[in-house]
Amino acid sequence: MQNIDSYVEKNKDRFINELIELLKIPSVSADSAYKKDVLKTADIIKKSLEKAGCDHVEICETDGYPIVYGEKIIDKNLPTVLVYGHYDVQPADPIGLWTSPPFEPVIKKTELHPEGAIYARGACDDKGQMYMHVKAMEFMTETNQLPCNVKFMIEGEEEVGSVNLSKFVKNNQEKLKNDVILISDTGMISKDTPSITTGLRGLSYVEVEVTGPNRDLHSGLYGGAVANPINVLTKMIASLHDENNHITIPGFYDKVENLSDEERAQMAKAPFSLDNYKKAIDIDDVYGEKGYTTNERNSIRPTLDVNGIWGGYTGEGAKTVIASKAYAKISMRLVPHQDWEDITKLFKNHFESIAPKGVKVLVKPHHGGQGYVTPIDSIGYQAASKAYEDTFGKTPIPQRSGGSIPIVALFEQELKSKTILMGFGLDSDAIHSPNEHFGVWNYLKGISTIPLFYKYFTELSK
Amino acid sequence: MQNIDSYVEKNKDRFINELIELLKIPSVSADSAYKKDVLKTADIIKKSLEKAGCDHVEICETDGYPIVYGEKIIDKNLPTVLVYGHYDVQPADPIGLWTSPPFEPVIKKTELHPEGAIYARGACDDKGQMYMHVKAMEFMTETNQLPCNVKFMIEGEEEVGSVNLSKFVKNNQEKLKNDVILISDTGMISKDTPSITTGLRGLSYVEVEVTGPNRDLHSGLYGGAVANPINVLTKMIASLHDENNHITIPGFYDKVENLSDEERAQMAKAPFSLDNYKKAIDIDDVYGEKGYTTNERNSIRPTLDVNGIWGGYTGEGAKTVIASKAYAKISMRLVPHQDWEDITKLFKNHFESIAPKGVKVLVKPHHGGQGYVTPIDSIGYQAASKAYEDTFGKTPIPQRSGGSIPIVALFEQELKSKTILMGFGLDSDAIHSPNEHFGVWNYLKGISTIPLFYKYFTELSK
Repeated sequence: MQNIDSYVEKNKDRFINELIELLKIPSVSADSAYKKDVLKTADIIKKSLEKAGCDHVEICETDGYPIVYGEKIIDKNLPTVLVYGHYDVQPADPIGLWTSPPFEPVIKKTELHPEGAIYARGACDDKGQMYMHVKAMEFMTETNQLPCNVKFMIEGEEEVGSVNLSKFVKNNQEKLKNDVILISDTGMISKDTPSITTGLRGLSYVEVEVTGPNRDLHSGLYGGAVANPINVLTKMIASLHDENNHITIPGFYDKVENLSDEERAQMAKAPFSLDNYKKAIDIDDVYGEKGYTTNERNSIRPTLDVNGIWGGYTGEGAKTVIASKAYAKISMRLVPHQDWEDITKLFKNHFESIAPKGVKVLVKPHHGGQGYVTPIDSIGYQAASKAYEDTFGKTPIPQRSGGSIPIVALFEQELKSKTILMGFGLDSDAIHSPNEHFGVWNYLKGISTIPLFYKYFTELSK
Repeated sequence: MQNIDSYVEKNKDRFINELIELLKIPSVSADSAYKKDVLKTADIIKKSLEKAGCDHVEICETDGYPIVYGEKIIDKNLPTVLVYGHYDVQPADPIGLWTSPPFEPVIKKTELHPEGAIYARGACDDKGQMYMHVKAMEFMTETNQLPCNVKFMIEGEEEVGSVNLSKFVKNNQEKLKNDVILISDTGMISKDTPSITTGLRGLSYVEVEVTGPNRDLHSGLYGGAVANPINVLTKMIASLHDENNHITIPGFYDKVENLSDEERAQMAKAPFSLDNYKKAIDIDDVYGEKGYTTNERNSIRPTLDVNGIWGGYTGEGAKTVIASKAYAKISMRLVPHQDWEDITKLFKNHFESIAPKGVKVLVKPHHGGQGYVTPIDSIGYQAASKAYEDTFGKTPIPQRSGGSIPIVALFEQELKSKTILMGFGLDSDAIHSPNEHFGVWNYLKGISTIPLFYKYFTELSK
C-alpha cells in the first residue's frame, strides 16, 4: 500500500487529539450513573465512522446500550472484513490510585514509552485499539486503497458481558455476513516482539451472598455462639482451592484440554523474564497452580479469583459487630471446551452445598462466555502475520491470552467465521487498573499495520 | 427509701423526653465527622449532673474526647459510690436497615415492650442506662435521701477503647477514690428474671491488610499466576479456626481458665430457650466451639470474629480485577486471665507467619482490654441483689456476659475497688445493630432500683 507512513506522520497529532476527546467521556457500562456518557460515546463513534468513509452508519438500539454499525461495500465479489470493538470502559475505581484523573487524558513519557503514552481509562481497552481501525479505514478511503468490503460493529457492553450483542448477532446474521472478523482488544509480547493472540479464556462471573442472623449483632453478646457470615464466607472461598492451588469444585476440570508436551515446549519459547514480571508488579514471588509455569497458569489453565469482597463495618475506627450479610464477586477464567454455563452451574451447586448450618447462601450468576482458539494456518492469520512482518520487520509469535472476549466464540458459532486478534497493547498498559495507558507509538503502529491486513487478506483470498 | 415509685410515676414523661433529647445527638466516637456532636453531648451531660444535684461538675479535657466528672460529698465518713457510664455511641450503619432514623428517636410498642420502647442509636448502650443514674441521683437529692457520697465519671470514648480514660484514671486516683464502682452498661436475662453481670470478656481488636501486586490487575491477564490478596486473606482468616471451631493461634488458650463441672452446671440453670434464641435472630442452627453450650460459647470461652472485610470491586455490576489490597477488621473476645496485649502479639506473630509468598501482611492493633470477674459475696453485689429483690420481687441471677467493658479491669487495678454491673437492657435491644432500642419499662425500672443500691450499700458498709 502507498504512503501509509507518511499519511500517519502527517496526521498523527489529529489522530491523538481525536482519541483524547473520545477518552474524556466516562463511558462506564457497569455503573448506570454514567448512562448519558455511554450513549454520548456511541454518537461520537457513529460520526467518526461516517467521517472515515463508511457509506451506511447506524445506531442499532438494544435492550441495553446501542451497537454502532457501519459498512462500506465496494464489490460483492470481494471479501468482507468485519471489525469488532467496544466503546464502553471498565469502572475507574479505585480513583485515589490514579496519578491523573481517569477521564482527563494526559500524555506522559515513560521508560517504556519515550514517545509518550496516553493515560486515561479506556486508552488501550478498548477505545484506543478500536479507534486505530477507524483511522486505518480513513486512510484507506482517503487514499482510495480500500481493497475489500468492510463492516464495523462497535458495542457498548463488552465490560458487562455483551448480553445484548449476542442477541444482535443471532438476529442479524445476513447483515453481519463476513469472511473474517478483525479485533484489536488484546496485547502483544513487547514493542519489538509482535504477537498474535490465538487463544482466549472463557469466563464465568458470579456474585455470592451469605446471610447469617437477620440483623447485625453485638460481637460480644453473640460472638462464638452464632455463625459469623464473614468468617463463613472466608472458609467457603478458601476451600475452593486445595494446597496445590487446584480448584476443588467437583467436575471443574473434566473438559479442560491438556496440552501436549510439544505444545507446552513451543509456548515456553516465547521470550519471558520472570524477574521483570515480578519487578513490574512488585511481588517477591509468583503464586499459582502446582505443575505449571506462569505463562501456562495465565493462559492454558482455568482459574478462580475473588474480584471483590465486602461485609460488616469497613469505616474508620472499630465496630464490634457480627454482620448479618457478607458478599463476594467471584470470576472463573475458563479454557477452551469448558462450557461457561455448565461451570456456573457446577459452582452454584458446589458453593451452596458447602454452606454450614446457620447461614443461607445465594449464588447470583452475572455473565460469562466461552473460550476460543484460532488455527495459525488460516488465511486470516497469515494475512495478519505478513502485515506485522512489514511494519515490525519480524514474524509475530502466536500466543494464547489469559483474557476473555466472550463474544468471539459466539461469532464463530453464529457467523461461521474466524476471528483474528491483532493486539497492539502491552501487559504494562494497566488495563482494568488505575493509570491505564496506551503508548503513542503502539497506537500509530496499529494504524499503519491494520491496512496491510486488508491488503494481504484480499490477495490471499483470491 | 420513701416514694421512689410515686416520684418516678410523676416525672416519667420528663425522664423520657430528656433521654430523647440526648439521643437526638449523633455522638459517634469512631467517626471524626461527628466530633462536634460528641463534644455537644458532653456539655449536656455536664448540665444534667448539675441539675441532678452534683456540687462540683467539670469537663475534664483529654487527648481525645472529654470526660464529664461530677460529685456530691455529703460526709467524708460515709462510703462513696463511683458511677461510670459513656455518652458516645456506636456508628449507626448500616443506616438502610433502620426502620426509623437512628438519631430521630421514636417510641414504638412491641410484643416484648407493650409500654413502648425508645428506638435510637444509644438508647440502651449507653445513653439510656447511663441517664438512669442521673435521674436516680436527682431523686435522691430532690427528696433528701442521698445516703452516701457520689462521684460520676462519664466518658466519650468507650466505643473506641477508652484509651484516654485509662490515663485519666491513672492520673486521678485520689479524685476518683471510692468504695464501689457502679455501672449500667450490660443486660439482664429478661424482664421477669433480673440478673447481675459477674463476668466480662476482654477484647483485642486488630485490623489486617494484605498487599499483593503494586496495582490492581486484569484478572484475565494475571489470574492464576499471582497471589490474589482477597483469596489469600480468606485462606488466612479461614485457617484461624479448626474443624471444631477451636482457634488455631499457638498459645491462644494457654491462660484460659477452665470452669469446673459444678460451675458449668450452675450456669446451665439460667433460664434459656435455644428455640427462642434461634427464632429471635432467624437462624436455623447455632454454630460454635465444639464441646460447649451456646451460653458457654458467648461468655466463658474466647472467640475470634471478623467484624468487617473489604477489597477489590464492590460496586454495581462486574469488574474483572485482581485487587492490590484486601483488608479485614478482626476482634477477639477474651476470658479472664488472657492478657489482651499478649493475645494481640500472638495474633500478630501468627498472622504474619502464615502469609504465603507473593503478599505482604500488615497487622495494626486497634485497642483492647482485660476480662473481669466479680465475686458474689461482696457488699456491693449483696446490695445490688437486695435492690433487685425490692423492685422485681426476685433474687437476681449472677451471670457472665460475653461483652467487654475493658475499663472495668483497669478500675480494679488502679482504684482498688470492685465494680457492680447493674444492667437493665435485654439481648433483644439490638445494641450495636440497626434499630437499637430500650424499653420504657426497663428505663424506669432502672431509675427506681438504683437508689436502693445506695441505701443497702451504705447500710451494709456500716
